[in-house]
Amino acid sequence: MTTRTTGQVHIIGAGLLGTSIGLTLRKLGVDVSLEDLSNAATKLAIDFGAGRLLEEKDEVGLVVVCVPPDSAADKVIEALARFPLATVTDVASVKGKILANVRATAEESFRYVGSHPMAGREKGGTLSGRPDLFVGRPWVIIEDDASESDCVSKVEMLALDLGASPIRMSADDHDRAVALVSHAPQIISSLLASRLSDATDYELSLAGQGLRDTTRIAGSDPALWLQILSANSTQVVPILQKLNLELTDLIHALDNPDSSGSLTNIAKILSAGNLGISRIPGKHGGKSKEYSQVVVMIDDKPGELARLLTEIGAAGINLEDLNLDHASGALIGLVEISVLPELEADLVKLLQANHWKLAG
Amino acid sequence: MTTRTTGQVHIIGAGLLGTSIGLTLRKLGVDVSLEDLSNAATKLAIDFGAGRLLEEKDEVGLVVVCVPPDSAADKVIEALARFPLATVTDVASVKGKILANVRATAEESFRYVGSHPMAGREKGGTLSGRPDLFVGRPWVIIEDDASESDCVSKVEMLALDLGASPIRMSADDHDRAVALVSHAPQIISSLLASRLSDATDYELSLAGQGLRDTTRIAGSDPALWLQILSANSTQVVPILQKLNLELTDLIHALDNPDSSGSLTNIAKILSAGNLGISRIPGKHGGKSKEYSQVVVMIDDKPGELARLLTEIGAAGINLEDLNLDHASGALIGLVEISVLPELEADLVKLLQANHWKLAG
Repeated sequence: MTTRTTGQVHIIGAGLLGTSIGLTLRKLGVDVSLEDLSNAATKLAIDFGAGRLLEEKDEVGLVVVCVPPDSAADKVIEALARFPLATVTDVASVKGKILANVRATAEESFRYVGSHPMAGREKGGTLSGRPDLFVGRPWVIIEDDASESDCVSKVEMLALDLGASPIRMSADDHDRAVALVSHAPQIISSLLASRLSDATDYELSLAGQGLRDTTRIAGSDPALWLQILSANSTQVVPILQKLNLELTDLIHALDNPDSSGSLTNIAKILSAGNLGISRIPGKHGGKSKEYSQVVVMIDDKPGELARLLTEIGAAGINLEDLNLDHASGALIGLVEISVLPELEADLVKLLQANHWKLAG
Repeated sequence: MTTRTTGQVHIIGAGLLGTSIGLTLRKLGVDVSLEDLSNAATKLAIDFGAGRLLEEKDEVGLVVVCVPPDSAADKVIEALARFPLATVTDVASVKGKILANVRATAEESFRYVGSHPMAGREKGGTLSGRPDLFVGRPWVIIEDDASESDCVSKVEMLALDLGASPIRMSADDHDRAVALVSHAPQIISSLLASRLSDATDYELSLAGQGLRDTTRIAGSDPALWLQILSANSTQVVPILQKLNLELTDLIHALDNPDSSGSLTNIAKILSAGNLGISRIPGKHGGKSKEYSQVVVMIDDKPGELARLLTEIGAAGINLEDLNLDHASGALIGLVEISVLPELEADLVKLLQANHWKLAG
């Protein structure tokens, strides 16, 4: 595989994203330099293999600004001046404000192309960096008339080299989309999780997978999210307002279940929810597929899951998904295996023949 | 293992729960009869191995009412009259209303003990029934002075025979707890998912795991949930009202990010969310533990995951959790393996020695 990115890449900010980009580019043999406000982070990222220090004589072709959203515009403007021949991009999660700021302030802002890799982890920082972070992820490249097309291509090539799937969008479209698929869910998950602070341990002992799933992202970094939400408030607010209105209606309906139309209103919301999730694209970027699920009960000890999957693999049956459901209070695990519907019968036959404990 | 349940068990309602209970009890050698309003469902459940038809001469010791919440009280009252020697329980998700109704209406209501197994699947119906449905799950047994203690024990023995962990609670405590850990999350997830109906495919192409997790339970059956939410509205409404107030405040803060206190308010919600999820009990019923995560990149083909887990199992390293993260648009999977922190170094060494692709 030929690497598309040519010349030196300079990374500003050695957190999760900056380090991950550096690690991958280095593996591809690209010359990477990096810097961070924190000398410790810079050194750590270099030790980690994500790049080297910038030198006086360097000729940087591409600068990737990987700092928190609040400082991204300033760093981009600074980089356009510091590296007069380079294309400059950034990876912040909100694009409109930064773009407007750069266009209004920087000379030669045609060398700036905003971008946003849809990748991350709940845990940030240099040590969380990993070269596979972007594999198969969408990477939004901001389309804007003022950007030079060579510069746009350069950022697109970077995304491809990192294994991501570039998608061109305007800054507005991007900010509206992430408000819906990322920022509103973050807020709602945090609000729901914050309700648990009043709960007794006794009440929480009834918690199941539904609560765990709906609140998982509430574990994200508040400082980072404060910046993201503030920067994209104009797009997030209308979504939350609609949700707030629907919630108010729903509370009213639940509070007056006997009044006319109440049950219909509740049923409508539940059905709209069914419809909504049916629209989320599934694995491999396609429409969500209906897989068949087979559930196997295994002992919670080393090697059991491996033995199960070895047998399935040996039979040439591909797993579409796999969920481990650890029973609370029991040293037993339920393994839910998703396969293409046409493979379900074969899988069940195989598992029964090998004496696994199945449903039904 | 000796089966605790003695005598004949009669199941009323052959949906997911009724069928699952019948399947397990039959495997344990218990005599199970069953009935359903639908003759087709009754026959299907019998073919499935969940029990037999009730006969005139039968002496039923325990009746388990497994019908939707709206009809549970009527069926319990009917069963107390039809089976004058039997203990009667039900498995509906809301307990207070049914209990009040049964106590007010039925003679010999001391033979009624409400219960609620915290188990289910998004997909209901006879054919979804499975004998392992209750393994390791909490099963709430309603404590109430009017219930005879022999009858309470009988239901507790049933829960234990089905592999569940019985927890005694009052009906009020139960209803308050499920409002918080199950009913409010259901509503919030549905509201969030319903926002997606306005979205373009283009916007939804940016959807990630966060959106999938927060909206997963929005796929549940609206008809069933309408009954659950109506029956428990008095407990659900106060939680939603608090959440609605916080959401209103948050919208105001986001809409006026520059006014004094706005950022603090947003940060508070995000931090409260962090705190809230830290209180959800983790695997094996204990407090949520901090596990170390190691991420491996594997080809999405049969046998790869098995090979990986075989090697880990052979080294005697136990997985605490495992997540498959399929990259959208790529035939590659990321496997996130959680282990006890003290095992992380061994695991990494093992994987590197065996040439797996790791982070960093």
